[in-house]
Amino acid sequence: MRTSYKTVQCKDIVKDMVGSSVVLAGWVHQIRDLGGKKFIILRDGSGFVQITISKDSVNEEVLKISEELTYESVVQVKGVVKEDPRAPRGVEIVPSEIRILNLASKPLPLDVSGKVSADLDTRLRERVLDLRRNEMRAIVRIADTTLRVIRDTLRSMGFIEVFTPKIIATATEGGANLFPVIYFGREAFLAQSPQLYKELLAASLERVFEIGPAWRAEESDTPYHLAEFISVDIEAAFMDYEDVMKILEKLIEQILTTLRKEHEDDLKILKHELPSISIPLPRIKYTEAIEILQNEGFNIKFGDDLGTPELRALSLKIGHELYFITEFPTKIRAFYTKPMDSNPELSESFDLVWRHIELASGSSRIHKKDMLIEALKSRGLNVENFQYFIKWFDYGMPPHAGWGLGFSRLLLMLTGRSNVKEVTLFPRDKKRLTP
Amino acid sequence: MRTSYKTVQCKDIVKDMVGSSVVLAGWVHQIRDLGGKKFIILRDGSGFVQITISKDSVNEEVLKISEELTYESVVQVKGVVKEDPRAPRGVEIVPSEIRILNLASKPLPLDVSGKVSADLDTRLRERVLDLRRNEMRAIVRIADTTLRVIRDTLRSMGFIEVFTPKIIATATEGGANLFPVIYFGREAFLAQSPQLYKELLAASLERVFEIGPAWRAEESDTPYHLAEFISVDIEAAFMDYEDVMKILEKLIEQILTTLRKEHEDDLKILKHELPSISIPLPRIKYTEAIEILQNEGFNIKFGDDLGTPELRALSLKIGHELYFITEFPTKIRAFYTKPMDSNPELSESFDLVWRHIELASGSSRIHKKDMLIEALKSRGLNVENFQYFIKWFDYGMPPHAGWGLGFSRLLLMLTGRSNVKEVTLFPRDKKRLTP
Repeated sequence: MRTSYKTVQCKDIVKDMVGSSVVLAGWVHQIRDLGGKKFIILRDGSGFVQITISKDSVNEEVLKISEELTYESVVQVKGVVKEDPRAPRGVEIVPSEIRILNLASKPLPLDVSGKVSADLDTRLRERVLDLRRNEMRAIVRIADTTLRVIRDTLRSMGFIEVFTPKIIATATEGGANLFPVIYFGREAFLAQSPQLYKELLAASLERVFEIGPAWRAEESDTPYHLAEFISVDIEAAFMDYEDVMKILEKLIEQILTTLRKEHEDDLKILKHELPSISIPLPRIKYTEAIEILQNEGFNIKFGDDLGTPELRALSLKIGHELYFITEFPTKIRAFYTKPMDSNPELSESFDLVWRHIELASGSSRIHKKDMLIEALKSRGLNVENFQYFIKWFDYGMPPHAGWGLGFSRLLLMLTGRSNVKEVTLFPRDKKRLTP
Repeated sequence: MRTSYKTVQCKDIVKDMVGSSVVLAGWVHQIRDLGGKKFIILRDGSGFVQITISKDSVNEEVLKISEELTYESVVQVKGVVKEDPRAPRGVEIVPSEIRILNLASKPLPLDVSGKVSADLDTRLRERVLDLRRNEMRAIVRIADTTLRVIRDTLRSMGFIEVFTPKIIATATEGGANLFPVIYFGREAFLAQSPQLYKELLAASLERVFEIGPAWRAEESDTPYHLAEFISVDIEAAFMDYEDVMKILEKLIEQILTTLRKEHEDDLKILKHELPSISIPLPRIKYTEAIEILQNEGFNIKFGDDLGTPELRALSLKIGHELYFITEFPTKIRAFYTKPMDSNPELSESFDLVWRHIELASGSSRIHKKDMLIEALKSRGLNVENFQYFIKWFDYGMPPHAGWGLGFSRLLLMLTGRSNVKEVTLFPRDKKRLTP
């Protein structure tokens, strides 16, 4: 796409264009000076191209400016495409003019070329430079495609994209971990999840999905938690937990297939191999999981949560990388979770587990008013606070089910990284509020 | 898609299926009792189908249950597809079993079939029922397709989808209209726009877009403002305001073309005709607009904002429905707006106007550090508060431009509605915090 500053993107310069005049604009990614010849690797959003400068082939002015260039300076380059078998894609640019649009200071606080590694704290502080690194650009591209596949796949199944309110009057999942907002002088909160609103929308529109921010005031700093995160949510009427598990595994399969096809280069940059899965994914019941863990020596009993060490041990023992744990105890799931008809101690619920990480969580939901009120009371929640939700159970609330998927956690599996902060552009946690 | 409750969606029942057994699930949309015969219009997320009940063709149990049905009750229907030329799509269902999954109370607080109209306040209070109305479902489908077209079109132009922080340390657009958040004991705010973060991402990734929530604590209640709204944002390095105006008008053209092709029925339901545009859209300079308004008798001068009455008069006078106003005075635009080289009193900025409504707003941005600091100071802003942003101007900030588009405002043009609250699923304003 031609813009005021360029006629073509770096990656679109190919052998067919040899002899053409082009205008490029981007960042000085690398400078290699071989005495008589200087190679500048120009980077833009699309990729790289080599600018070759030698005394014989460029004018005085270009030579002079090429001496002033610093890493990450922003430049515009006019030149002609030449063939060069040693350059990437077999082409190089011989410049007739180089214009510095913004000179970068040196030294840079972070090495963009990736030769000098930095710890995550430094990288997050210098994030704008960090995001220019090859690995981060690969992660961003994979995230972009993943979002596209999620939406396309859900739309093909009849799901409609929605946006639900992020400022809410009361806690949905109990009162913990909420960020208070001052809303026109009243106290309100940031939504921990779109849960109740997506249920109401399923009661109107049948199948809905949302990809948007959610917030939890997590006190502890872990590689799997953020104060602000992107949640992928679906909710569907006339489905139960098994139906929405099938949707989730199909979605994951579609993402993996597409990334293998379209992002081979990015996966290579990340030195990452995507997990091989076949659906249906393995399913293991919560009670079975507890038994296995007890046999492994864990001091755990029915009703306990499965934390990172438990999930790690369980995944190793059963030999699966990606699987469902199903039918959790009703009392350890949120109030809207539907108990099993055959045994109300257990619920129609599941988690999707990858290695030691819970990627997604879902269930059939209660759709009968009496049962909902009972569930609220049994958890000590104030029924009055939920009237805005309960009200609709009198007016055609269908049976429904859904799940929420942590987008950054999913990206760990897709990019081979180990900390959600690394795959989040500008993460927020207890200590980070900028950049 | 077969689920636990159904084998097929209502709208997928067509003549080819005559003779097949199906299981359906949905809401009782209408009941027409013609004495010997009863017609139930069953509605699900996909559409409608007619269930025909006559003493001759159904069993006692079905007859009995059909007497108990109320509007909006949730039912499951097993039956056989029969031909009926008078029914929608020429097919009806003769049921062998009807199961009530959730009986709806009567009377309903809002008429879903649309025969009895209600004012917007009532509709928003009874929103879950309101969203089941034909008109609202058409709006939701149009919104869904619009989102799809926006993302597909921007991706085809090399834009990458991003998410930026919504909890921020300082105001981006000046201090007004911010919602305070208590962030781990510190004061923070909800983002009014992704502005500075999208600029930083353009400095890393070149072309980015985001569709997400933003917040403004608007004291006044107007048909065009919400406390929480969805903003469509792009930001691109190596573009100026004219480049991003071209992207915006191409995007609008693509949306209109797609809606005409895919949503003829929905537009009919809404009794709405989409505007006919041809690109390039008309462009009128701010100074020209002021002159026209002065000639129209408005008491307005250079440096004044253009409000609803001014835009209404201007659009009528120039005879355009959708057009750009360009080159606003620098001092009435945000600090990051780039002044024109030829006359720094004016800026490289624009608004996209539809009738009397500003749909989008954009500009070239300042990319030089000195100029940015000058712009902050001249507006009385504290330079220290913006250090997290200014810092990056030393490390390869490219020339860049972008715009923000109000999604609900755009939907007014696409659906023919007149209040952004009507086209927002669960709107938030000063008085509404639920549902």
